[in-house]
Amino acid sequence: MAKSTQLIDNEVFRAYATYTGIVLLKMMLMSLITAYFRITRKAFVNPEDTASFGKGESAKKFLRTDPDVERVRRGHLNDLENIVPFVGIGLLYALSGPELSTALLHFRIFVGARIFHTFAYLIPLPQPGRGLSWAVGYSVTFSMAYRVLKTAWLL
Amino acid sequence: MAKSTQLIDNEVFRAYATYTGIVLLKMMLMSLITAYFRITRKAFVNPEDTASFGKGESAKKFLRTDPDVERVRRGHLNDLENIVPFVGIGLLYALSGPELSTALLHFRIFVGARIFHTFAYLIPLPQPGRGLSWAVGYSVTFSMAYRVLKTAWLL
Amino acid sequence: MAKSTQLIDNEVFRAYATYTGIVLLKMMLMSLITAYFRITRKAFVNPEDTASFGKGESAKKFLRTDPDVERVRRGHLNDLENIVPFVGIGLLYALSGPELSTALLHFRIFVGARIFHTFAYLIPLPQPGRGLSWAVGYSVTFSMAYRVLKTAWLL
Repeated sequence: MAKSTQLIDNEVFRAYATYTGIVLLKMMLMSLITAYFRITRKAFVNPEDTASFGKGESAKKFLRTDPDVERVRRGHLNDLENIVPFVGIGLLYALSGPELSTALLHFRIFVGARIFHTFAYLIPLPQPGRGLSWAVGYSVTFSMAYRVLKTAWLL
Repeated sequence: MAKSTQLIDNEVFRAYATYTGIVLLKMMLMSLITAYFRITRKAFVNPEDTASFGKGESAKKFLRTDPDVERVRRGHLNDLENIVPFVGIGLLYALSGPELSTALLHFRIFVGARIFHTFAYLIPLPQPGRGLSWAVGYSVTFSMAYRVLKTAWLL
Repeated sequence: MAKSTQLIDNEVFRAYATYTGIVLLKMMLMSLITAYFRITRKAFVNPEDTASFGKGESAKKFLRTDPDVERVRRGHLNDLENIVPFVGIGLLYALSGPELSTALLHFRIFVGARIFHTFAYLIPLPQPGRGLSWAVGYSVTFSMAYRVLKTAWLL
């Protein structure tokens, strides 16, 4: 157990664990928002999900797409596309021995940008708000990847 | 090499590795099921995939969506949305020094819930079977995230 | 800090970090290619993204799907479905103490197969080019999972 305790005692690793925990919980929240809109908009995709609204034709009309549901789903997929690289590259970055202050700067900007991105997508804010917040998070991940490859490079 | 050997010697980490391996293989299985339904239902999305069925109009009719294919794809995407947070948060949880019995309880319930979720989606079982199994896995991940944030918190 | 420095000093772990960094950057590149096709094909999905093309009906005609955009998006989703298991299982594999030469063989074949897969999808190459490159990457991940489960097995 000694080793694991040590790893979580490392300050950069603790910061990584905190921000990764927060941003993954934020991503998981998208599932709840999707469920909320599916239920309030009565817009489902699986026939078995509409059984409580009655049988046959009366239930079939709830098998439809809804713009709000689709918007949350796009935000969720965008999270997957961007948070997966952050979690993977961020772990390697945290293990590459960066300064705590530099690491915190990366993690804070990324998580802040992704939280802003979610609001920009769901409200929605006019562009380029969403586009810029996406680009900021993307650049942070790219910067961490640069350090990982520079430190670890073994092809 | 000493360090890595030690990490994999940690019992909680070994349990994490076992359950993560199993649940990621389960997720990979969805690709094979999708391929199986695409071929048996003759429902493809890329024109180059239908070339073996002939040229021109005769092949074009296989570029279509099929309810069974779409159902497996939704199950696969749901896996991505839920198993990615489990893998990321579960790693940090395993390194936060939990009791082996508590960790095993979390891992077993999550992986059991996701396997049940797949059957509930593909058969399909009447609701709330699928919904409940989703909620169980979600709650386990949330519980692990709570411990990670409590242990590591460094903002 | 000692521990993290040691982990990144492990040669197998350095190889894992290098190939994971490369393949995650490759996956992130799909976002840029999607954006490129959305802009050049003028095919958007969010109304706020078309605001710069004018108001009302004149902007509405750019809310449409485009075959090239959809093709890149399918390639991106296929990356998520296959690279996520590689990153998770590959980390556990790297910590299971394999020979460096064996590990490099796994990582090189996987990353090579996924880069080929992207070209096969986007050009597109005739089948079975894309299918085979998918199967090669899938098999490599499966082989790593076998070693992880054999080494770590604790149910």
